[in-house]
Amino acid sequence: MTKQPIGIFDSGLGGLTILKALRRQLPQEDFIYFGDTANVPYGSKSKQTVTRFSAAIARFLETQQVKLIVVACNTASALALNELRRQCRVPVLGVIEPGAQAAAAATRNRRIAILGTEATVRSKAYEKAVRKKLADARILQQACALFVPLVEENWANTPATKHVAQIYLTPVKRFRADTVILGCTHYPILKPVLAQLLGKKVQLVDPAQTTARAVAEFLKNGQTTHGKGKLTVYASDDPTRFKRLASRLLGTPISNVHLKKLNV
Amino acid sequence: MTKQPIGIFDSGLGGLTILKALRRQLPQEDFIYFGDTANVPYGSKSKQTVTRFSAAIARFLETQQVKLIVVACNTASALALNELRRQCRVPVLGVIEPGAQAAAAATRNRRIAILGTEATVRSKAYEKAVRKKLADARILQQACALFVPLVEENWANTPATKHVAQIYLTPVKRFRADTVILGCTHYPILKPVLAQLLGKKVQLVDPAQTTARAVAEFLKNGQTTHGKGKLTVYASDDPTRFKRLASRLLGTPISNVHLKKLNV
Repeated sequence: MTKQPIGIFDSGLGGLTILKALRRQLPQEDFIYFGDTANVPYGSKSKQTVTRFSAAIARFLETQQVKLIVVACNTASALALNELRRQCRVPVLGVIEPGAQAAAAATRNRRIAILGTEATVRSKAYEKAVRKKLADARILQQACALFVPLVEENWANTPATKHVAQIYLTPVKRFRADTVILGCTHYPILKPVLAQLLGKKVQLVDPAQTTARAVAEFLKNGQTTHGKGKLTVYASDDPTRFKRLASRLLGTPISNVHLKKLNV
Repeated sequence: MTKQPIGIFDSGLGGLTILKALRRQLPQEDFIYFGDTANVPYGSKSKQTVTRFSAAIARFLETQQVKLIVVACNTASALALNELRRQCRVPVLGVIEPGAQAAAAATRNRRIAILGTEATVRSKAYEKAVRKKLADARILQQACALFVPLVEENWANTPATKHVAQIYLTPVKRFRADTVILGCTHYPILKPVLAQLLGKKVQLVDPAQTTARAVAEFLKNGQTTHGKGKLTVYASDDPTRFKRLASRLLGTPISNVHLKKLNV
């Protein structure tokens, strides 16, 4: 099992924030990242369609002999995880359970807010996962449809983003959550503005960190323990835009991105 | 030719603004509208991918015996029109040429600004089409990536949209354009805020109006001249969200939307 790569996919670029955490946690593993840039975004689409896209990516990753698939996209984790687990020969891990677990452990007043895409919020996947850990938690879900386009426009640290965030966070502040789950891979890029608006007493939970630990824990003795891990990146649309935006999310530039049309 | 419907497609919902203008111009025609909600948006994607999606839709519309295909999406018109004309048996009309023609006729100071998606702006399709009509026009292109998500969030008339529009329009005002093309089907929804920011002396050109006239002119004696036209609507993703947002763009509710998965 140890010589095979770990597969990780997202609707587009956002999953690179999870990949970054995974590579830090598991520097000797090989990774294959798939960004579905032809079909991005998933956050406004139906369970049926998101599952169809996700299953096509998982099939491709299995042809690449991955030992494990990480669903980096919160929307795909929320809508498609069960179906992927049914269809795949290899284990499939999502970001929802690790994120919910971290939030349940962090909260003191048992009031947790979840920021996510329209589809993630509609699925209530985070809400259900938090309740499994903390049955009496009080939960507020808030869809933040404009956060992804704001990050992709490279406007994270602008007054426009602050203005939009103020609108989305008004109910969160009124709810007096002490813990807020950043339930979309783009949102950690907005941490500075969200932290400023919510104040120091509110903890922001980035599922990337706990997901990376969950993957390491899952692999245990199956981890690669020598050498330096390789990264191979595929995108379903022309990689030019992907490469341009990738360094913002991964922290380092990506030189080589392969175009791979999906069979959906 | 007269008994066949007119096919019209868009990456999603935006094309309903064109459909609205077409139905007003040609009330006796039957229309088949296809919204590619599984793959929306097109505006951030490559020519290759947008052409692949557009060609799949055109093939479907041809199986529905349409007499003509209207590419309502500005991005698809900008990137895929030539290829669609090559592949289709029926005539294919886009929105770029009618929009450019209207702008060239409207301007007095020969300074025209074009607002559009990232992909439309990158293609320079409007710029080339305007120059064919007005060789010495001075042209500014401005990509406005956040306008579509703002409209779909139903925030058209909010301070957030005004704030974002101010940023995008700053170079347009500095350029002293007297004519501005609304080069994306969602943008006419923002007319009030754009008109307020640009002032009364600037003319906003909505290609929907001239496209409808161009289609009527093209059909001439082939127009249906009796009865009341039927509308049939298809979407490539679950129609629930489509129906919810559609009335905002079409002006009337749509009760029946068929799910049609694309073969891309």
